[in-house]
Amino acid sequence: MGRLTGGDPSLLRRINSAVVLHALRGAETATLTEITRITGLSRPTVEGVVEGLMGAGLVVEVAAEEGVARRQGRPARRFRFRAEAGHLLGLEIGPHRVAAVLSDLDGRELGTGEREVDESAPADERLEKLRLTVADLLRRAGVARDSLRAVGAASPGIVEADGTVRLGTALPGWTGLALGERLRRSFKCPVLVENDANTAAVAEHWKGAATDSDDLVFVLAGLSPGAGSLIGGRLHRGFGGAAGEIGALHLLGREVTPESLLSTTGEPLHPLDEQAVTEVFAHARQGDAQASAAVERFIRRLVHDVAALVLALDPEVVVIGGWAAGLDGVLEPLRRELARYCLRPPRVILSALGEAAIATGALRLALDHVEEELFAVEGTVTARR
Amino acid sequence: MGRLTGGDPSLLRRINSAVVLHALRGAETATLTEITRITGLSRPTVEGVVEGLMGAGLVVEVAAEEGVARRQGRPARRFRFRAEAGHLLGLEIGPHRVAAVLSDLDGRELGTGEREVDESAPADERLEKLRLTVADLLRRAGVARDSLRAVGAASPGIVEADGTVRLGTALPGWTGLALGERLRRSFKCPVLVENDANTAAVAEHWKGAATDSDDLVFVLAGLSPGAGSLIGGRLHRGFGGAAGEIGALHLLGREVTPESLLSTTGEPLHPLDEQAVTEVFAHARQGDAQASAAVERFIRRLVHDVAALVLALDPEVVVIGGWAAGLDGVLEPLRRELARYCLRPPRVILSALGEAAIATGALRLALDHVEEELFAVEGTVTARR
Repeated sequence: MGRLTGGDPSLLRRINSAVVLHALRGAETATLTEITRITGLSRPTVEGVVEGLMGAGLVVEVAAEEGVARRQGRPARRFRFRAEAGHLLGLEIGPHRVAAVLSDLDGRELGTGEREVDESAPADERLEKLRLTVADLLRRAGVARDSLRAVGAASPGIVEADGTVRLGTALPGWTGLALGERLRRSFKCPVLVENDANTAAVAEHWKGAATDSDDLVFVLAGLSPGAGSLIGGRLHRGFGGAAGEIGALHLLGREVTPESLLSTTGEPLHPLDEQAVTEVFAHARQGDAQASAAVERFIRRLVHDVAALVLALDPEVVVIGGWAAGLDGVLEPLRRELARYCLRPPRVILSALGEAAIATGALRLALDHVEEELFAVEGTVTARR
Repeated sequence: MGRLTGGDPSLLRRINSAVVLHALRGAETATLTEITRITGLSRPTVEGVVEGLMGAGLVVEVAAEEGVARRQGRPARRFRFRAEAGHLLGLEIGPHRVAAVLSDLDGRELGTGEREVDESAPADERLEKLRLTVADLLRRAGVARDSLRAVGAASPGIVEADGTVRLGTALPGWTGLALGERLRRSFKCPVLVENDANTAAVAEHWKGAATDSDDLVFVLAGLSPGAGSLIGGRLHRGFGGAAGEIGALHLLGREVTPESLLSTTGEPLHPLDEQAVTEVFAHARQGDAQASAAVERFIRRLVHDVAALVLALDPEVVVIGGWAAGLDGVLEPLRRELARYCLRPPRVILSALGEAAIATGALRLALDHVEEELFAVEGTVTARR
């Protein structure tokens, strides 16, 4: 029947390996007979593939259970996927902290680590703190560095496909930084760099507040909000990686910056001074009229920015995260105003992962990369159009 | 080799048919030997498939060329795809006109038609004018109604997946109209209904100003602008079909409507009064200070709306269409302001298709539907994940 079977035998071997791995990963353990049934492959093919996967360290035979052996004579050999055959890292590089999360090949979390960084720290210092955080984490988890199969890293700013930061005003010395290249010096495995709001969107979809929706916008609420979006379950980066960078919207035809909006003194706040912002919100809660007015101005701005995203993208769900999410009074006005102005208002919910979202999403990107290598079959065997 | 070959034989027949049709459609004519070479299928398979396609009327044998026959003895039979085996319609239902474009199965245009409609016409009258336009067009082209394989229809407003208009304030009696159902009464083939800015985006990508980009936003500029976008070459409808409906953006924190912005009398213009708008632009060109100020206000609003789309989506190209596109002075300020405020400014270009864009894009959607039925192979044969 032509190309579909007559083609490249190594491609077919890869496909069969992927199919078997996928089946094994979906079960605790499986016998050759079970794999044959699940995959639809022939017994000799399954035997050959499992042999190869054991050689590559990705599959191992598990000891037979005693009871089963007694009752039924020689028991069938059972195999399992070795999730511990490799490891993944998700990294967050933020204005105030660096953080890392470690997992096995199933994405199961094995440990986390973080370090505070001053918002004025130069790039080298920030990356050194990240290096120390990773070294600590690997040592504590007893994982060798060369066991890492992929690393995902999240950074503020617009990140190019090769991991260069095109624009990153939140961190000193960040614009133009070849972040991917720098990180690749520390790791022998593939390193994927992505915008922080984008990874947070991925994380909330993976194991956060939006596991039930494939069309979501994640808003990293702050003085200069950023956003990431998933469309049909896939991260929407934009043509130049700049999708969701709505922070510039207030520059258009609006007189005041968010820093001025939240000020109660007339002096604008520092863009990254979360402490000051938290105080303004606290004062508002205590009934301070000036602070309440400032919070109201701030929320109105946030509503406008989110509404622009919602009108452009029409997501099913908007997840609000970032430091502003922990503060009272953001969610309800957002819901109310979006219901007023959007033709089809989305659900508005809080981040479930909190500050873990950014590194968790970076981990998920690393996992996606490895899964594509190990398990990807979809799209490989298709006729040409 | 398992599922990929051992599976459903009718699926394999369909795939082989699609592969052969695709090969034939890409060539003027082809012999069985040529099809065998292009597709990688066996000779008997190709013979069987071509036989079946001839039976279905999709392929026909072409007469041998005399010269070839003389020189080489009995010439090989040649076959071609019958693009005339079916027809497609693209429809535009607008505030001021209804229009239709007819094509064959290759998407080659065979004729167009249009009729003026009053903006206050009720839904029944508008649909009756559309019916007459289609009947005229089919008669002039000599195409039988039952030769239609699919119809695409473009409408203002938010259109649900089943073709119901969820919200359509531009046309009287439009909100809630079961437009898809109404149109399906007139046609025996599948009818696809889509938002007009969305079809225009599809058209500019197909054969207009943005054939070289897969990431574009089309702005249907007007008093209440709408937009359609393609992401990675695919139409982005949004979760509820409302993506790009940025007309409501001005309601947020902005005091005046576009109708007031463009007014030079203090009285707002009628939202659909294109004549009055054109006059304001003309007066501005003639140096009228009041009109110039009005145009400037209008452009500032348009820039803001487009900027919101660009920041949210990060397209490579923005195509400006709709009636405002023909008017001077929109393009340059848009480019200048987007360059100032967008982190990665897109190219901004004018629509190449003008008022034909909407119906042309509707035709393309009909063509996509038929191609998916006749030629779709990609994604059909994949292992399960």
